[in-house]
Amino acid sequence: MKSLYRDQDEYWMQLALSIAKNGIGLTSPNPPVGAVIVKNNKLISSGWHKGAGLPHAEVNAILKHPRKHIRGATLYVTLEPCCTWGKTPPCTDLIINEKIRRVVIGCEDPNPIHSGKGINILRRARIDVRVNVCHEAAKKIIIPFQKKVLTGMPFVTLKMGLSLDGRIADNKGYSRWITCYQSRRLVKRIRQGVDAIIIGGNTAQMDNPSLLSLHPQKQPLRIVLLSQTHPLTSSLRLFNDKWAHKTILVTNTYLPFSITNKLTKKGTQIWCLNNNDNNTTGVSLMPLLHRLGERGCLHVLVEGGGTVAGSFVAEGLIDRYLFFIAPIFLGASGKNAINGYNWLIKKTPKLHFDKVYNIHSDILVIASPFRRNAHIVYDSDILLNKLCLPA
Amino acid sequence: MKSLYRDQDEYWMQLALSIAKNGIGLTSPNPPVGAVIVKNNKLISSGWHKGAGLPHAEVNAILKHPRKHIRGATLYVTLEPCCTWGKTPPCTDLIINEKIRRVVIGCEDPNPIHSGKGINILRRARIDVRVNVCHEAAKKIIIPFQKKVLTGMPFVTLKMGLSLDGRIADNKGYSRWITCYQSRRLVKRIRQGVDAIIIGGNTAQMDNPSLLSLHPQKQPLRIVLLSQTHPLTSSLRLFNDKWAHKTILVTNTYLPFSITNKLTKKGTQIWCLNNNDNNTTGVSLMPLLHRLGERGCLHVLVEGGGTVAGSFVAEGLIDRYLFFIAPIFLGASGKNAINGYNWLIKKTPKLHFDKVYNIHSDILVIASPFRRNAHIVYDSDILLNKLCLPA
Repeated sequence: MKSLYRDQDEYWMQLALSIAKNGIGLTSPNPPVGAVIVKNNKLISSGWHKGAGLPHAEVNAILKHPRKHIRGATLYVTLEPCCTWGKTPPCTDLIINEKIRRVVIGCEDPNPIHSGKGINILRRARIDVRVNVCHEAAKKIIIPFQKKVLTGMPFVTLKMGLSLDGRIADNKGYSRWITCYQSRRLVKRIRQGVDAIIIGGNTAQMDNPSLLSLHPQKQPLRIVLLSQTHPLTSSLRLFNDKWAHKTILVTNTYLPFSITNKLTKKGTQIWCLNNNDNNTTGVSLMPLLHRLGERGCLHVLVEGGGTVAGSFVAEGLIDRYLFFIAPIFLGASGKNAINGYNWLIKKTPKLHFDKVYNIHSDILVIASPFRRNAHIVYDSDILLNKLCLPA
Repeated sequence: MKSLYRDQDEYWMQLALSIAKNGIGLTSPNPPVGAVIVKNNKLISSGWHKGAGLPHAEVNAILKHPRKHIRGATLYVTLEPCCTWGKTPPCTDLIINEKIRRVVIGCEDPNPIHSGKGINILRRARIDVRVNVCHEAAKKIIIPFQKKVLTGMPFVTLKMGLSLDGRIADNKGYSRWITCYQSRRLVKRIRQGVDAIIIGGNTAQMDNPSLLSLHPQKQPLRIVLLSQTHPLTSSLRLFNDKWAHKTILVTNTYLPFSITNKLTKKGTQIWCLNNNDNNTTGVSLMPLLHRLGERGCLHVLVEGGGTVAGSFVAEGLIDRYLFFIAPIFLGASGKNAINGYNWLIKKTPKLHFDKVYNIHSDILVIASPFRRNAHIVYDSDILLNKLCLPA
């Protein structure tokens, strides 16, 4: 009987995890969390965290039903319930008050200040608590949150669309379109899961991108890094579309009022950051990431161009790489995917290929920084599994 | 009963095909061919073509046994039996004389001069002939032979080992080693299946490669393209190892006697070809391929560097691409994988990704030139299936 019981816990936790994934990209600075309530081996309720300030997943699941239904049930929750007052009251109180008999938890809170405290409170209230069910999967969906909590910086994904010979634009500077429609569509879906997109001023100027996701209501911040060598026109889409208030221009110098006035009128913000490390992007990247972390960003997508990508790579700031490789050559004078840096073979930043997908005519190579020990990979499938066939 | 019969034909033909593959890389200018002889639904003999001038596959299979065993049997042969005198007598005569009752053929001879003639001769001798069993697979293993017969040029595979940002050497020119041991080992196996390897003079000078396959007795020709800008030292391995007589130096100008004397002493040949198209490799490539075709080469492996690769790509001479991509960056001043040419996105040579393999830490991307209609892919698995896991 015991092994069946265990299997059932995993079954319900998997369900809670798949519900949690609804929240990816929406919950920052909170992690995505899912919960299901089971009584007599039947699902009676479920909930997920829909955004900061809104009720937590457990609360959503519990409050859907009258108290008498919930009493004595088992709560499955992907992350340890909170025990402190934030924007909402502690979930542990509600669980105890509602007389839930048993709580099954995917993983502990990665924040060392809170970790284990919620579990202790529940156990002291004589609730049967089981921890680390589907532990690895539960950890995976909060990797960006965990990084933010532990380092103050968001999880950073570098996305590039490049030719087989490593070029992101032809020798005239055109990059439309290197990759196929399906790849670009997938990128829009990936943007849905992040809180901010970073591009260089040159890319903003050359490509005039919108950087929008497929989500109708929620768009990521759009960060443009402005070095002094980039002339930037104020008519770009980023500064004028209906999401202009989500655009942030980051510069290392005070811009003349004539320019800032034009931009800020539509809502674009301007951040002035130092460039202590004389970075070719014009901005010190670590402080930028910390500032984005303070703004509540959990996951940042760096979309190039080559200079921005090169600086992030050189400073070791990338957590995951997405290379959309198109089956074309652009030749030696095409724009470099990684610019401004050179490495000898023995000293090169080494990656680890996690997965390869066929995306129509392109391939998508997912990689992470090489580590001597085991690779814990941020679950790319969360975003990709509906769209891609394995290569 | 009929459907079972058909299945049996395919079963025996598959066996003949797998036997034929033993000959890949050894039979030039002949194609690899395999044959099995079956009587009363039992295998009684098999054979494959081991090299030009040696008996054909059918002959090897037939002559292994006394005539009385062969009489009345069924012969499965992957390619239409020859009906003309070459270095050996026509196989159709032997088949008729040995009173074989039935002949099953994988595909017809691709040479329009011979195609169908052998089949007609057998049928006129009242032998029951069935053609096109496992037709696609039978076609695949003779693709290089077919190209040679129809165009006079060998099948051309471009192999490159490159970093994720499209570099084949770091900015000091070092390329040892971009790819992992397992990839390099696989390249040695791939060389076993080709008749010649082409590299540029610069690569010969910088890397001083041996370009050897794993085969102890049979090595491919090693072709070095010498443009006038490459100084080449005579102490290179290619000119001094025990396969020096398999090295051919191709140049567009007459070299001074002092140099040629040193090289030819060890057996290296020197070809002087025009450079009518002012190719950056120093040599017109079409005439080179025709000359290699005349020498009997069916399959040529182009191994770079960037200038040679660029010229072959620009002239549309590549039939198959093998990209060993290593999980590293070398940066903007690394050596370009494709050099000397540039393409706008709309006019770029477009490929088709056929397959991706994980090779230890690298990935191997197999591609072919893009065609509007269906892609017939040279069966890469022939060489790869024992070594690679699908990505």
